[in-house]
Amino acid sequence: MSYNLLKGKRGIIFGALDENSIAWKTAERCHEEGAQIVLTNAPIAMRMGQINNLAEKTGSQIIPADATSIEDLENLVEKAMEILGGKLDFVLHSIGMSVNVRKGRKYTDQKYDWTEKGWDVSALSFHKTMQVLYQKDAMNEWGSIVALTYMAAQRVFPDYNDMADNKAYLESIARSFGYFFGKDKKVRVNTISQSPTPTTAGQGVKGFDGFIAYAEKMSPLGNATAIDCANYTVSLFSDLTKRVTLQNLYNDGGFSNVGVSNDVMETFMKE
Amino acid sequence: MSYNLLKGKRGIIFGALDENSIAWKTAERCHEEGAQIVLTNAPIAMRMGQINNLAEKTGSQIIPADATSIEDLENLVEKAMEILGGKLDFVLHSIGMSVNVRKGRKYTDQKYDWTEKGWDVSALSFHKTMQVLYQKDAMNEWGSIVALTYMAAQRVFPDYNDMADNKAYLESIARSFGYFFGKDKKVRVNTISQSPTPTTAGQGVKGFDGFIAYAEKMSPLGNATAIDCANYTVSLFSDLTKRVTLQNLYNDGGFSNVGVSNDVMETFMKE
Amino acid sequence: MSYNLLKGKRGIIFGALDENSIAWKTAERCHEEGAQIVLTNAPIAMRMGQINNLAEKTGSQIIPADATSIEDLENLVEKAMEILGGKLDFVLHSIGMSVNVRKGRKYTDQKYDWTEKGWDVSALSFHKTMQVLYQKDAMNEWGSIVALTYMAAQRVFPDYNDMADNKAYLESIARSFGYFFGKDKKVRVNTISQSPTPTTAGQGVKGFDGFIAYAEKMSPLGNATAIDCANYTVSLFSDLTKRVTLQNLYNDGGFSNVGVSNDVMETFMKE
Amino acid sequence: MSYNLLKGKRGIIFGALDENSIAWKTAERCHEEGAQIVLTNAPIAMRMGQINNLAEKTGSQIIPADATSIEDLENLVEKAMEILGGKLDFVLHSIGMSVNVRKGRKYTDQKYDWTEKGWDVSALSFHKTMQVLYQKDAMNEWGSIVALTYMAAQRVFPDYNDMADNKAYLESIARSFGYFFGKDKKVRVNTISQSPTPTTAGQGVKGFDGFIAYAEKMSPLGNATAIDCANYTVSLFSDLTKRVTLQNLYNDGGFSNVGVSNDVMETFMKE
Repeated sequence: MSYNLLKGKRGIIFGALDENSIAWKTAERCHEEGAQIVLTNAPIAMRMGQINNLAEKTGSQIIPADATSIEDLENLVEKAMEILGGKLDFVLHSIGMSVNVRKGRKYTDQKYDWTEKGWDVSALSFHKTMQVLYQKDAMNEWGSIVALTYMAAQRVFPDYNDMADNKAYLESIARSFGYFFGKDKKVRVNTISQSPTPTTAGQGVKGFDGFIAYAEKMSPLGNATAIDCANYTVSLFSDLTKRVTLQNLYNDGGFSNVGVSNDVMETFMKE
Repeated sequence: MSYNLLKGKRGIIFGALDENSIAWKTAERCHEEGAQIVLTNAPIAMRMGQINNLAEKTGSQIIPADATSIEDLENLVEKAMEILGGKLDFVLHSIGMSVNVRKGRKYTDQKYDWTEKGWDVSALSFHKTMQVLYQKDAMNEWGSIVALTYMAAQRVFPDYNDMADNKAYLESIARSFGYFFGKDKKVRVNTISQSPTPTTAGQGVKGFDGFIAYAEKMSPLGNATAIDCANYTVSLFSDLTKRVTLQNLYNDGGFSNVGVSNDVMETFMKE
Repeated sequence: MSYNLLKGKRGIIFGALDENSIAWKTAERCHEEGAQIVLTNAPIAMRMGQINNLAEKTGSQIIPADATSIEDLENLVEKAMEILGGKLDFVLHSIGMSVNVRKGRKYTDQKYDWTEKGWDVSALSFHKTMQVLYQKDAMNEWGSIVALTYMAAQRVFPDYNDMADNKAYLESIARSFGYFFGKDKKVRVNTISQSPTPTTAGQGVKGFDGFIAYAEKMSPLGNATAIDCANYTVSLFSDLTKRVTLQNLYNDGGFSNVGVSNDVMETFMKE
Repeated sequence: MSYNLLKGKRGIIFGALDENSIAWKTAERCHEEGAQIVLTNAPIAMRMGQINNLAEKTGSQIIPADATSIEDLENLVEKAMEILGGKLDFVLHSIGMSVNVRKGRKYTDQKYDWTEKGWDVSALSFHKTMQVLYQKDAMNEWGSIVALTYMAAQRVFPDYNDMADNKAYLESIARSFGYFFGKDKKVRVNTISQSPTPTTAGQGVKGFDGFIAYAEKMSPLGNATAIDCANYTVSLFSDLTKRVTLQNLYNDGGFSNVGVSNDVMETFMKE
């Protein structure tokens, strides 16, 4: 589908790794809706992924950036405005990584250097990105910034580990920075809290497939897919949602507001 | 603006009174986006308003209905499908009225017949509407139902009186019925929690203008207008938000997540 | 245990049916903590229950009252002050009943006369009780009013039916009336959102035992029992919680903030 | 008042600086309620404060500890168990500090070394404390851990700066670690979200007095004081609240659930 919802708009998409990535789908959808975009990812992620294919497909350039480095972010924002020919209308932050999870450390046995690294990459990077955008006055009025998050910020999913705390911090940044970005620059800032999604990154989490099946049974409309998330993000980048800001928005087939579903109770009772 | 977001879709809009109504703006926007609609309102509201002008402007028919009457709702839904030539894709519920407010009764001195009347009109009517839609199997898959609400359902605004409790009940219906509508019919149900909006109906509330000014100063992006709400509703009726359901979505310039703004503190401190 | 936490305090306990009732346990605990109480229940519930045993055990009198009748409530409040020798320090509202549930009507097939009856008994009765207390100036300063509720007010538990909406309305009343009771009389108003509890009343709900087992597995500390709830209520009636008001407080072993537990995932995955 | 609520219980109180501190009042109240305690604070805070007076008054020993140092925390927990003669029943975490606030850096112009320092001191220290307690198996069953937080974790208070994000992270830790501490050790973990309180530490925040006056006018029961918080904490350390866990509990005179009060509107309208 294409509605020209983002015609004439310019933006940066962080975090497209391969075609399973939510950021990848979002870049495609933004392009279909008429936007011009710049892609970015960490140098290491770029080597692993196929971001060049995406760049070709969407007629966009890639600027590598470590999202924890102010220098890289400044370079990214400056170059993006140059390439796109003006200030930005939207930014997607889709970055997350926990060293403790990768290395199999339990939540009750954290290695704190790793905790800090994960916090910097997954959460503080969102503040850094916005601080650079804000200080360079790089966003147009009524621009829109979105970060992806997960409901572990509100409720415990034991295997999500320290990413839960990182997402809570990330969502708080969205509110805190969103206040100043709104007041001073008329820019909205929101997070999308997405269903568990079978991306390449997500597959590292223990028991992820089983959890996806569980979430599917809990959600009246089933799990939201990467494409659903890309579409929702497009709506938040468009002019249809100009006064929506500081919100954490669930895109999850209803999971977040279900205490227990009949399907889950049935499976449970067979035991 | 027009993107053909609702091309080929059919829906019912409740509650358009005059051109200040959110429902009025929503009807206009749905029409612009390519939808065919049927308008409805209570017989008494229709005499007071200018709904015929809206019908003309949007090429739509009007079917009067008391939203507390199952008979009227059944007639409405049947006729609407006849007129529009098929099942429905969207419904907007924008109905609210408190007799206690109108008659100036304090929250601590309710007349309970009036409390019940307000509850029936403002809250239970949403259940009745959905029960009729559900039982008549009147919604297409991936259809979307939206009701308008207000943040008094979460926090106290003293003059909002028993409407606060009605809105809490309404939002609960959205979740409860949304579960079954999602599971059984693949239909999403959400509420939009809108900034205070200077509609004709809202003007009855004591101190409403002052409160609008206060909300404006609290909200980083200012109060969402009726047009903003119409646009947001269009996005929720569109295919961009197919897995968003059971949610209460704030369209309020950020008010809901601000504890206090610098502007409000400044005004407060001058005292 | 006994700490004399409520020494010299006077209160009314609604809703003790038999020794499985939360209200029953609360009455016993209030008595142990040094309070003087009056018991009340609907005439019909009194015939079914063993409230006389409780009255004897706690040295208290019983005043029958239909909590939907202002006349009955006025009589109750007046007599209670007479019997107890002064204004009240605490009130427990533990009342709930859905005719739709009792008669087996689905949530998508409500009989609205029954919906209204359930709403009046389960939710509006709380407003009526407080309005009578407020207008008769029957509460001492720093008094405490508590109503029991359930998390279905926030999330869907499909079999909880229209009680979900009633509880949402009840919790909203706690906030709305709590504002005025706080401001005007220095009285706090809160709700306790309790784990599913195997009371005689709860046993009417379909699949209740299975659900209790599920909640037990989801809750890091297991389900809160009736005694746990009685103890928590005592803490809210005591002077230790004088500035806690307008809150909905979960007493549920952590259930409300768990997305999924390892125990539930294990059971689920065996399937 | 004294009820012997904590008779025979042992605990550690972090963060008592001087007699305005919430931790100070809590230590006094725990002592009055029959508990034996160990006091701790950062070496630098101890030089500034009068913690020796508190130790004398409560018959307790002081063990200095930098709460960001695992080594210090291990020493603290071991020594505390030695001194108190057994495992612990309760712990209060009352620690917070933002370098960005102290140095006057705006939220939109953070120095990230300082952001990290503040996060480590204010938020991660809570994880470190619990990880040490957990790994040393230092808590008795049905023990209780409480951390103090502020509502800026949910809504924006512009001058609260990066402490908002730190508190969001802290509250997430309470849930995440609370899950494992509950499941594995039967220990509850909660946070208290307290009214703005005129402590010595709080006085560093810009415009703090004005904000306290504002919060007072917004709260139906007025701001909760340090003593109110101490009492509430005692109730959470007691056996009255054994199944309350993973919760963020507002002790704020109702502020959190008020959208706007009549008092604030009156002040606002005089303008």
